Amino acid sequence: MKYHFLTVFPGLITPYFEESMMKRAIEADCFEVEVKDIRDYAKNKHRKTDDYPYGGGAGLVMMAQPIADALRSIPDLSECEVIHLSPGGTPFTQKEAKKLAQGGKNLVFLCGHYEGIDQRVLDRFVTKEYSAGDYILTGGELPALIIADAVSRYLPGVLGNAESLDEESFSQDLLEYPQYTRPAEFEGDKVPDVLLSGDHKKIREWREEKALEKTKTVRPDLYQKHHGSEF
Amino acid sequence: MKYHFLTVFPGLITPYFEESMMKRAIEADCFEVEVKDIRDYAKNKHRKTDDYPYGGGAGLVMMAQPIADALRSIPDLSECEVIHLSPGGTPFTQKEAKKLAQGGKNLVFLCGHYEGIDQRVLDRFVTKEYSAGDYILTGGELPALIIADAVSRYLPGVLGNAESLDEESFSQDLLEYPQYTRPAEFEGDKVPDVLLSGDHKKIREWREEKALEKTKTVRPDLYQKHHGSEF
Repeated sequence: MKYHFLTVFPGLITPYFEESMMKRAIEADCFEVEVKDIRDYAKNKHRKTDDYPYGGGAGLVMMAQPIADALRSIPDLSECEVIHLSPGGTPFTQKEAKKLAQGGKNLVFLCGHYEGIDQRVLDRFVTKEYSAGDYILTGGELPALIIADAVSRYLPGVLGNAESLDEESFSQDLLEYPQYTRPAEFEGDKVPDVLLSGDHKKIREWREEKALEKTKTVRPDLYQKHHGSEF
Repeated sequence: MKYHFLTVFPGLITPYFEESMMKRAIEADCFEVEVKDIRDYAKNKHRKTDDYPYGGGAGLVMMAQPIADALRSIPDLSECEVIHLSPGGTPFTQKEAKKLAQGGKNLVFLCGHYEGIDQRVLDRFVTKEYSAGDYILTGGELPALIIADAVSRYLPGVLGNAESLDEESFSQDLLEYPQYTRPAEFEGDKVPDVLLSGDHKKIREWREEKALEKTKTVRPDLYQKHHGSEF
């Protein structure tokens, strides 16, 4: 799997892959990352990549030509998933992460800034438009990193323990139960007795009950979905 | 406004504020950023901040003590909003961004890794738990940056043009209309005539129609909300 990031701020992308699990995953050849600066494809002398919107309005729109040329510099572009990050996209979810990871296609992340990107270049190249959530950001870099991170967790060798993937939030439309680690008493607060009991059946029941409680309180929409799937 | 980030990977946070709009905003004193490495508060000689979960299961859980001590090193902690980033939190939305920006409190972002954080330290300190979306990431750093970015856009002086805030996605439960910039013809594709007409009423109508169309197709849930609010 290869990730291509197209951005006018490469410095927002590269550091994410120089730390933590992502760094180890690249060193272990789980995936590759290439970051392209859209400004390098501008044809004007000031490396300008944006201009005023036709029809008026606030802000600037990213021009089609530098983006089209940056995209065309990717040798296997026609076999890639070209992803535009936009609050107007389909909500990105764990299911989509799994699909992208198993889809076998390299991913191109087109990160917009300002008031967005000239629609003509989107119409021509983009195969998927995703939103990371119902909020507005200064650019598409953070949503692009979110997708790359969520997808990477499904690639062989990235997570130490495959078990982690099945027990976590959303895998059964439930949020996660609370976790505790040593010491058994922290500033007077004790770990719930059941977790120290060694009774695996009871522990499983307690965790399920806590997960259900939390989901019902915080995310009634998910609780409904889980409840529905039981009958 | 001051943002405090608590993380075991400071290198995932600092670069975001050294580029683009965020850098300019800090230079203009729109907000301040402080990043604390949780490992600096570990009391054991290997600076270990995680341990096995009580009750069994895959992965490691972040220990209470280093996090509690890192939090207590913030002088005005009791007046801060202490935010835990978790897939089990309340979905973060544009409305929450506005509320945090206008709430007048400094924000503390507690970024978990591995299988999460010992519940006892969360129970004691956290005032808000947010999820950036229904997906699982390797850590809370990207969701923390998302919240800081979305909140910052509401702080005076961060965006060049206040108009941008009102016309964008979600401000009326609608996604944004398509944007176009120069040239009027790009590789044979023309900008829609109406945008070149100079007729502001027609342009407004066309944009509203496109925004409605897109919302209806991509986000029937938002369309329903917008439609409902009209009657």
